[in-house]
Amino acid sequence: MSHAILLISCPDQKGITAAITGFVAQNNGNIVHADQHIDEQSSTFFMRLEWALDAFRIADGDIQNAFSPIAQKFGMTWELSFSKTQSRVAIFVSKHLHCLQDLLIRHKVGQLNCRVELIVSNHPDGGKLAQEFGIAFAEFPVFKENKAEQEARQLELLKKHNIDLIVLARYHQILTSGFIRQYANRIINVHHSFLPAFVGGNPYFQAYQKGVKIIGATSHYVIEELDAGPIIEQDTVRISHRNELKDLILKGEDLEKAVLNRAVRWHLEKKILCYGNKTVVFD
Amino acid sequence: MSHAILLISCPDQKGITAAITGFVAQNNGNIVHADQHIDEQSSTFFMRLEWALDAFRIADGDIQNAFSPIAQKFGMTWELSFSKTQSRVAIFVSKHLHCLQDLLIRHKVGQLNCRVELIVSNHPDGGKLAQEFGIAFAEFPVFKENKAEQEARQLELLKKHNIDLIVLARYHQILTSGFIRQYANRIINVHHSFLPAFVGGNPYFQAYQKGVKIIGATSHYVIEELDAGPIIEQDTVRISHRNELKDLILKGEDLEKAVLNRAVRWHLEKKILCYGNKTVVFD
Amino acid sequence: MSHAILLISCPDQKGITAAITGFVAQNNGNIVHADQHIDEQSSTFFMRLEWALDAFRIADGDIQNAFSPIAQKFGMTWELSFSKTQSRVAIFVSKHLHCLQDLLIRHKVGQLNCRVELIVSNHPDGGKLAQEFGIAFAEFPVFKENKAEQEARQLELLKKHNIDLIVLARYHQILTSGFIRQYANRIINVHHSFLPAFVGGNPYFQAYQKGVKIIGATSHYVIEELDAGPIIEQDTVRISHRNELKDLILKGEDLEKAVLNRAVRWHLEKKILCYGNKTVVFD
Amino acid sequence: MSHAILLISCPDQKGITAAITGFVAQNNGNIVHADQHIDEQSSTFFMRLEWALDAFRIADGDIQNAFSPIAQKFGMTWELSFSKTQSRVAIFVSKHLHCLQDLLIRHKVGQLNCRVELIVSNHPDGGKLAQEFGIAFAEFPVFKENKAEQEARQLELLKKHNIDLIVLARYHQILTSGFIRQYANRIINVHHSFLPAFVGGNPYFQAYQKGVKIIGATSHYVIEELDAGPIIEQDTVRISHRNELKDLILKGEDLEKAVLNRAVRWHLEKKILCYGNKTVVFD
Repeated sequence: MSHAILLISCPDQKGITAAITGFVAQNNGNIVHADQHIDEQSSTFFMRLEWALDAFRIADGDIQNAFSPIAQKFGMTWELSFSKTQSRVAIFVSKHLHCLQDLLIRHKVGQLNCRVELIVSNHPDGGKLAQEFGIAFAEFPVFKENKAEQEARQLELLKKHNIDLIVLARYHQILTSGFIRQYANRIINVHHSFLPAFVGGNPYFQAYQKGVKIIGATSHYVIEELDAGPIIEQDTVRISHRNELKDLILKGEDLEKAVLNRAVRWHLEKKILCYGNKTVVFD
Repeated sequence: MSHAILLISCPDQKGITAAITGFVAQNNGNIVHADQHIDEQSSTFFMRLEWALDAFRIADGDIQNAFSPIAQKFGMTWELSFSKTQSRVAIFVSKHLHCLQDLLIRHKVGQLNCRVELIVSNHPDGGKLAQEFGIAFAEFPVFKENKAEQEARQLELLKKHNIDLIVLARYHQILTSGFIRQYANRIINVHHSFLPAFVGGNPYFQAYQKGVKIIGATSHYVIEELDAGPIIEQDTVRISHRNELKDLILKGEDLEKAVLNRAVRWHLEKKILCYGNKTVVFD
Repeated sequence: MSHAILLISCPDQKGITAAITGFVAQNNGNIVHADQHIDEQSSTFFMRLEWALDAFRIADGDIQNAFSPIAQKFGMTWELSFSKTQSRVAIFVSKHLHCLQDLLIRHKVGQLNCRVELIVSNHPDGGKLAQEFGIAFAEFPVFKENKAEQEARQLELLKKHNIDLIVLARYHQILTSGFIRQYANRIINVHHSFLPAFVGGNPYFQAYQKGVKIIGATSHYVIEELDAGPIIEQDTVRISHRNELKDLILKGEDLEKAVLNRAVRWHLEKKILCYGNKTVVFD
Repeated sequence: MSHAILLISCPDQKGITAAITGFVAQNNGNIVHADQHIDEQSSTFFMRLEWALDAFRIADGDIQNAFSPIAQKFGMTWELSFSKTQSRVAIFVSKHLHCLQDLLIRHKVGQLNCRVELIVSNHPDGGKLAQEFGIAFAEFPVFKENKAEQEARQLELLKKHNIDLIVLARYHQILTSGFIRQYANRIINVHHSFLPAFVGGNPYFQAYQKGVKIIGATSHYVIEELDAGPIIEQDTVRISHRNELKDLILKGEDLEKAVLNRAVRWHLEKKILCYGNKTVVFD
């Protein structure tokens, strides 16, 4: 069944919900999911509205225009999407392939509603997996000297494929701000620590040296500052003195797969709204 | 600040949300929280709506009547309440006092918005704690022979105090269906297992004998069938072969306190809706 | 590096640990891991001892005989194994392939120290996966009428391959007691519920109907009584009223993979001891 | 029943366990608990041994001397204690009293095997609670100018009461290194974040601003560097965008109580060994 989804944020004020749900009701839409949230600190209103289109009186292509007056009245930042439209995804990876493999398997069995168009890597290691799943693989070896040039080539490829979402599934290259700006809130990274603890390289080793009793993993949108973007999802697992570094990695990689998978799924299902450096996740 | 809260359930149909939120908007109410859920299996709509009353154009005492036509139109089961009205609570306890003590401390520091009117017990043990917190204590020794009579006396006392909610904080007596019917969906029990596992007596011992690797606790509304009412909240904790029965009890009692406290708080904040033998909890 | 591993249980008495560790020390063994546990209820002693063999004065093949007098003195049930010896594993599966796939991937990247010799199924579905990983696939369609005959053929095949461990990775056939007895404590099953809740068929549906707030999965050794064998590992995840049956399955399948993987790994690393209907897991 | 407990650490070498358990066996001791661990990175051996003294052939007062030769041979750092000896504890607190209250209740019902000798505070707030539990309360208002003087007076009081363990139950004063040195590995603090994230003041506010999806609490031994001492225990709880700062505090305070209680209990039961800046916890 075909659904429309509205993601909305605006300054909180009286009558917003009534106006939005009234629009759907008056045009004979049947609301399937409705979630809203008011952030008291900033007095901001957030809403995710999903309704069935089968008896809706406005054609898909005309909904954007029909809703615009309401959006304008309340000063909304908003995005309209349709459940039938599949996002086009590129997955970036380096040498650790467990997150890539997990995403590809979940995609294959229908857990991720998208098209995986491309696998991009700075190493050849992911090529075999790409081939097994029948997905194009593009290798861009990146060094200090050729970074600008390789990013330009990557961007060109992404544009060519009309990529909507970039997933960094353990891609061990820091993207330049120029690159990030072109995909604002559309690049999801997984960091193998419980952020903001253990930013940067070798977080499992950092955690092991520190002697923490719980380790974690974090998925987040990428911004210029390293490992500092809006957090989408986190998870943790208990460790003990019996666990050596290799055990931390064994346990942690399962967390990485879990938090990255959930972040990607929620993004594809239009369940995430960013504000400031935080996220609202209507899971 | 004074808020009104509507808890609504009805058959799902078009225009419900628009009608409800329209009612608030047209009367100049400012929505503070709105949660809704549609149970697809039974096609039932659930909503919790909370709005600020400071500029609302309808007087508190008239809201019930004003909203009635909408409720009637959609066939709603509904309940209107006000944040400023404190529920009147009776806590039933036997000899294990940890849940009672936890509730009383949380109440004292303001975590539970209610009046604790009474502590009722079939044993004298809770008397001292009641006294420390300045709450009336009523002892009703219960035996097979006097059960009907004692329940009648308890009900009389509860009526006298206009009790809205009964909390069974490890009360080891099975209430008769006659008693339960008078407080339908207003008696919350804590059971010291992960229901439906280990129904009935000595659940820690049952869990220990079974050799489970995780134990749990459950808070639920009381119905006639033992330990079978709508589940409100559950929590679990990991155990191992190193844990003896006394360790299960030590760990489990902390779970009991946690799940009972959350259930009581959510009930008082009007966040729970029952349907069939399940609950919707808008936490 | 080559290690020897002793798994021991016996009635608790003075001097056991000293005798065992003395045996290793006197023969110049270097203890790498030592875990012991005393079950107070039954007054039973359990130990897992792992020591490096590089400077050990007794040849691998002679350790069994050399240790026997100590074992006899204390009335031990015991098992000697060597880290370099890989167990031979058969995985049984029906139509749900997520656990099989997870095990095969973990095996491929070196997380499971064993040889996966066979994949056995009552359906053809797992064949493609078996082929991808280069493992023999044996299909035995099972009906009421041919069950005895098919089990006999399965047993013959298992014997031919010298199978040490059978993993039921969502194998939806109940094994006969005759079959089970031949692999006592060597058949690991995953059940998709938090046992002992929701024994038998369709546990996700049972959990959904019951309205629990947490679901679980359990791995256990198989005994004659259905879903009642010694529990090895359990895990749980929180759900809410927002989760439909398909969401319970989505969340639960990840639990199944986790608890089955851990059980198999611990079994292969000789970390599990059974007593009565419980397990000691020296993880 | 009277038990002896040995906590041992030393460079790993052959024959340690045999020597230690041989000592107990030869003198007719019955081992009740034995845990050992080898840290591979530093090649360090750790052991906790607990044995029953009822038939032990060495008098309590002579065990220290009798074991010394073994300790010397293996270069052990070691500590002998007896289950019947109760540690003498001082609890430091400021204005947040939930951790203090939780410890006092657990102590009262027998969960903490110690004597709570003193409650020390820089504010008068805890006085009433101290009185309710019949424990001496000492107020030391601390300002920049009188800090050295007040610490000297506190130390004098602690010495007078022969305090073995100091528990900082939300004591919002930074102790000087002079103070800390006198109670090395005998001061336990609770920090209301998942360390090393959110060191210093207002960790709940820091977590709220950062938009994390999970918050935590940490108990640790105090060293000179702020919030950086060996971590004993941590726990985490999931939050969402729906949780305001006050909800983080509500959830987090329950974590604080849990991790502080466990750390104090394990310390009192001699289950913790420090090495470098980490802990081994034989729970």
